[in-house]
Amino acid sequence: MNSIQLANIFASAGAVHINPVFWLVPVASIVALAFAYKFYAGMKKEEEGTDIMKKIAMHVRHGALAYLKQQYKVVAIVFAILFLFFAFLAYGLGVQNGWVPFAFITGGFFSGLAGFFGMKTATYASNRSAWAAKNSLDYGLRVAFRSGAVMGLVVVGLALLDISAWFLILNTFIDDLDPAHKMVMITTTMLTFGMGASLQALFARVGGGIFTKAADVGADLVGKVEAGIPEDDPRNPATIADNVGDNVGDVAGMGADLYESYCGSILATAALGAAAYMIDPATQMKAVLAPMVIGALGVLLSILGIYFVRVRKGAGSKELLNALGRGVNMSSVLIAICSFAILYFLRTPQWLGNWGSILVGLITGIFIGKITEYFTSEAYTPTQAIAQQAKTGPATVIIAGMGTGMISTFYPVVAIVIGTALAYGFSAGGDLTNMSQGLYGIGIAAVGMLSTLGITLATDAYGPIADNAGGNAEMAGLGKEVRLRTDMLDSLGNTTAATGKGFAIGSAALTALALLASYIEEIRIGLIRIKSHDNITEYASAVISKLNEVGGIEKASLLDFMNIYQVNLMNPKVLMGMFIGSMMAFLFCGLTMNAVGRAANQMVNEVRRQFRENLGIMEGKSDPDYARCVEISTKAAQKEMLFPSLLAIAAPVVVGLLFGVTGVLGLLGGSLASGFILAVFMANSGGAWDNAKKFIEQGNFGGKGSDAHKAAVIGDTVGDPFKDTSGPSLNILIKLMSMVAIVMAGFTVSYSLF
Amino acid sequence: MNSIQLANIFASAGAVHINPVFWLVPVASIVALAFAYKFYAGMKKEEEGTDIMKKIAMHVRHGALAYLKQQYKVVAIVFAILFLFFAFLAYGLGVQNGWVPFAFITGGFFSGLAGFFGMKTATYASNRSAWAAKNSLDYGLRVAFRSGAVMGLVVVGLALLDISAWFLILNTFIDDLDPAHKMVMITTTMLTFGMGASLQALFARVGGGIFTKAADVGADLVGKVEAGIPEDDPRNPATIADNVGDNVGDVAGMGADLYESYCGSILATAALGAAAYMIDPATQMKAVLAPMVIGALGVLLSILGIYFVRVRKGAGSKELLNALGRGVNMSSVLIAICSFAILYFLRTPQWLGNWGSILVGLITGIFIGKITEYFTSEAYTPTQAIAQQAKTGPATVIIAGMGTGMISTFYPVVAIVIGTALAYGFSAGGDLTNMSQGLYGIGIAAVGMLSTLGITLATDAYGPIADNAGGNAEMAGLGKEVRLRTDMLDSLGNTTAATGKGFAIGSAALTALALLASYIEEIRIGLIRIKSHDNITEYASAVISKLNEVGGIEKASLLDFMNIYQVNLMNPKVLMGMFIGSMMAFLFCGLTMNAVGRAANQMVNEVRRQFRENLGIMEGKSDPDYARCVEISTKAAQKEMLFPSLLAIAAPVVVGLLFGVTGVLGLLGGSLASGFILAVFMANSGGAWDNAKKFIEQGNFGGKGSDAHKAAVIGDTVGDPFKDTSGPSLNILIKLMSMVAIVMAGFTVSYSLF
Repeated sequence: MNSIQLANIFASAGAVHINPVFWLVPVASIVALAFAYKFYAGMKKEEEGTDIMKKIAMHVRHGALAYLKQQYKVVAIVFAILFLFFAFLAYGLGVQNGWVPFAFITGGFFSGLAGFFGMKTATYASNRSAWAAKNSLDYGLRVAFRSGAVMGLVVVGLALLDISAWFLILNTFIDDLDPAHKMVMITTTMLTFGMGASLQALFARVGGGIFTKAADVGADLVGKVEAGIPEDDPRNPATIADNVGDNVGDVAGMGADLYESYCGSILATAALGAAAYMIDPATQMKAVLAPMVIGALGVLLSILGIYFVRVRKGAGSKELLNALGRGVNMSSVLIAICSFAILYFLRTPQWLGNWGSILVGLITGIFIGKITEYFTSEAYTPTQAIAQQAKTGPATVIIAGMGTGMISTFYPVVAIVIGTALAYGFSAGGDLTNMSQGLYGIGIAAVGMLSTLGITLATDAYGPIADNAGGNAEMAGLGKEVRLRTDMLDSLGNTTAATGKGFAIGSAALTALALLASYIEEIRIGLIRIKSHDNITEYASAVISKLNEVGGIEKASLLDFMNIYQVNLMNPKVLMGMFIGSMMAFLFCGLTMNAVGRAANQMVNEVRRQFRENLGIMEGKSDPDYARCVEISTKAAQKEMLFPSLLAIAAPVVVGLLFGVTGVLGLLGGSLASGFILAVFMANSGGAWDNAKKFIEQGNFGGKGSDAHKAAVIGDTVGDPFKDTSGPSLNILIKLMSMVAIVMAGFTVSYSLF
Repeated sequence: MNSIQLANIFASAGAVHINPVFWLVPVASIVALAFAYKFYAGMKKEEEGTDIMKKIAMHVRHGALAYLKQQYKVVAIVFAILFLFFAFLAYGLGVQNGWVPFAFITGGFFSGLAGFFGMKTATYASNRSAWAAKNSLDYGLRVAFRSGAVMGLVVVGLALLDISAWFLILNTFIDDLDPAHKMVMITTTMLTFGMGASLQALFARVGGGIFTKAADVGADLVGKVEAGIPEDDPRNPATIADNVGDNVGDVAGMGADLYESYCGSILATAALGAAAYMIDPATQMKAVLAPMVIGALGVLLSILGIYFVRVRKGAGSKELLNALGRGVNMSSVLIAICSFAILYFLRTPQWLGNWGSILVGLITGIFIGKITEYFTSEAYTPTQAIAQQAKTGPATVIIAGMGTGMISTFYPVVAIVIGTALAYGFSAGGDLTNMSQGLYGIGIAAVGMLSTLGITLATDAYGPIADNAGGNAEMAGLGKEVRLRTDMLDSLGNTTAATGKGFAIGSAALTALALLASYIEEIRIGLIRIKSHDNITEYASAVISKLNEVGGIEKASLLDFMNIYQVNLMNPKVLMGMFIGSMMAFLFCGLTMNAVGRAANQMVNEVRRQFRENLGIMEGKSDPDYARCVEISTKAAQKEMLFPSLLAIAAPVVVGLLFGVTGVLGLLGGSLASGFILAVFMANSGGAWDNAKKFIEQGNFGGKGSDAHKAAVIGDTVGDPFKDTSGPSLNILIKLMSMVAIVMAGFTVSYSLF
């Protein structure tokens, strides 16, 4: 237990007393990583299958690792530049504290590490899962699911490791403040490592998303539509790239994404807790630790849940589904019970209210998951109605898919609105003017929602592993039966994964709300930092003197800040910020959609070229040049991901300079409201098109090969960038912009013009 | 000059002195209506063409009038119910003044009348324009453009008539208040007739949009794609319905839409002016009259501009384009000059600043128009790039169209942000804290933008007339040349119409901002009304006592209202309102998109049935049953338009009851920010797909009949509901929700729970 020993050294080095319940956090982290290693080692021991299976898996693995290497190189350069920039802000201009650049770097590093481990596991697991599925369905499930669990546990383990390490470091080294302010300083500094995680996640999602969809669309358009060969046919030059894409997009991308959500929710809540309870340092410590400890508990319960996903030999698909559901549900119920116990033990001032907020978070997540399933599964009428519109061609299927996706935003929004209201109300003790505590409740609801991430991510990540196993089986000519089994595993996962997606979407909205609130705490710290400067802007000094009128920067309430900055809806700065924020969500989607289009076009041309220049490929006599397709996707993804991502970083900085704190809050509010809804719409439309196609393939409306099927394939292709590139990136975009605003808060208060 | 005599009677009946410059408004109204009649009579005198042309025009006219009759019946029922409801609020509950129900009714009535006159003119003009185009291009232009001018002048004439009549009525009969409060009462009451206009416009746009696109999509899918017959072929049973659709959607819908924008901008600005200058009644009167008088001037200058659209006999298309541009530009330059003169004459306190705001409005409108043109015209790279993506099929063309549409939102948003900032800054005299005057500046910018509506609407409305003339020529077998000429006229209009669209979109955003601000004035009136009630809610009485602390309801500033209601971005009520508002825009689009899909499906089935059951149709031996198709579109439109429209009415009421004034402001802000951007995206994607198809038809990427062309046709079909149903309805939705909030303000303050 190295980290604990290290921590004790820190703790004894003169830092204030840490509530002992904290130690649960590093312990859970170590336990999670240990179990991840155990599952990884177990998977590696499984049989690898035939030589050709090994060879294919190796191709995919090499492609995926080569991609990740290239991606991390580009990302490293961006991070290095930003590191220098933040260092300049801290040590040159003195507008933020000196820990920020380092916190930023570790956030990005750990997030990248989580993606790397998850993807490495997935690429080792594909042929092993296929071989296991050849033996039996339940054996296939075990190998694939345990491999997915590696990802789940690595993500939460590394997140808690980073959080506890920084908490100890900052607690040891920041010692020039009184305890209450020290805790605000610690938590706001830790928040900035969230920006590193967010940025890494955005690159992973956008880059991975472009890679995977360029390969997918390219492979489908030439392979399936023009050449008439089936999916994953080894003669298709883009097929390896397609499988690589599943790993870099769905596995590594998702890992980095949820690492970011998980850290973001815990850190934002801790910062809000520090701000809400400054009167009493002991209480404050409890409020700061509560989200971390609930996360730690959730990790331990997730591991327990993973062990409950087991079935008797030769079990059918229904039993498998029940087993998966049992694992997730058990973890959720246990976290509901255990968080009651831990909050009772901690006795935060509104401990019962906080527990209510956690329950609200869990229920909201489950509800959004069910709604997502209802609108995207072919078992229900909305998707069936979209499939029916395929009978009159691609135009009507696309109109119907978009219409239904837009309508589907109603329910998640209502769920979030009610959930937010209740989470706020419970933690505010029923008194709506109790703003700090209410906002803390919104944060803790997000933490509750994500607390079982260890297992929900396992059910999410095992889907692409099963999918890849299917690809491996197909290319290796393992026969239809294995493919059918892997498909069944994949689709089993979809039902539980819908819950996971609900949690991801819901927590993004709640976390972003919590980040919005914590932004003001960063502004407070920024103002404290600059108040004694000489070359302070007129505007900032006016704000400070107004804050002094209401009792000083340290004592001013959130409401005081809102009134003094005039963050109200009649202020043109707020309104302009909202317009820009809303637009950013659309602009970002547009840029990523077009990037996929351009990259797919290149892929189409390359596949056509190979078919044309090497006639042996279609006859099965000579191997296509898989590597070239991987290279095209890699280059396109790297080239295309930079601009939209840098735009997301630039927006809060530019708006901050021009329209100040007020404009930035408008920007964040606008991007949150419209980005969240746009994300739901795109994810649901994309998912529904995908399953409408599957519904037709099951023999409805003419079945495979009919005109309706062709129309549905077009719908599915349009949906690819919706659900796998633009949609999921939006959830990160919203939070990244908040994180950038938070990191740049000191800069904004010092240099904004208005 | 009946209305003036009547007005004098009112004016002498004991009302306060009206600044004589007011009389320009009714005069301009009468002049506009007189010229509209002149142009109408002139058009009616033109030759009607062959018997078959007359017959076709009659079919279309009867279909269109039958539709409008049916539509107005349904709308009348809705209006009657709402009238009773508002009467109950006014006379039963006493939460609003007794004029409101009547103002509401007249707004709807005049808006409907404008649509009716415009459409009647258009349906008489189609065969006459076709026949004129047979003679020469310039003759065709004259007939079609003058017919479009009827619409333009009827809209502005009726709007100014309604405005001046109500101003006189209220000025005469409201006499229990001091002058400053009386003016606030007058302007806020007049605002409520904006709700009538908005609601009528929404029904017209949604109903008309569903009708026209169901017919269009249905006609294209079976006619062009399945049966392989050209557009407007008389054998297609849906072809009359398609032409009827152009009239009810593009003409009547647009008329009601712009009537609403025009009234809304003038009324909102008047209300803001009344609120901003309450200190001095004489100044206040000037601020109230300024927007009306600028509108009146614009009408007169538009008529002048219309006369400048003339060319020598036998002029080519370039000369025609120049003539159109000259008319619009001249009106714009003259309004810039004349508004300087009138503001100098009136000397509103910030008259020079107000003039700056008007210029900003005009320039912003022109800029948005140019950007719209750049992103949607096949003369520029964005649309050409979309056309190129058609080479790889419908999926890529749709991805590219959506991506480009989303990206295109950047520029209008930047234009609106800069425009808003400048319009606010100029009218606030450079002092950003001068909120009331700054917001008045935003309103007056919108008025400036729309001041030349008389002529810009003429260039807009003449497009569908030329299009219909082409349909008439085609069906009557008048030969390719005439069709080519009408197509050329139509496409000539597109360039100038882009400017008109820019004005419509830009003014919607600015007007909605102004309405947001005027909402608070309605709240003020509502609070004054209820303050002495006995059964007032605890919340409302708390608000009133806080307002008393800052000097009373009457004297409280906008900022006081914002602070007391805590309308800031940390307030969960604001955030929840914003989420719901954003979602409403998507939900509304989704509902209307799906409505078009369903209605088109019915049309497809009907056309298929007719072809199947009556084989003589395709052989040209027997007439198809046109009327049945018109009936299907009519019924579908009536059935489908109700739910989304009623939802738009219900949202502000429900949010008001649950989350109070604060929540409603969040709702309006959220719907404005995301609705505006969604509207731009949908309009531009739709327009770009349309023209990408045309670009291919011009012989690029394989030309007509190629696979690329087929893909582009699918893109165009998807774009139909984007650009003609959902997109344009959104502009109205945003404003209707504000208008409903305004009308229900008294109810909200009296009964809201929080």
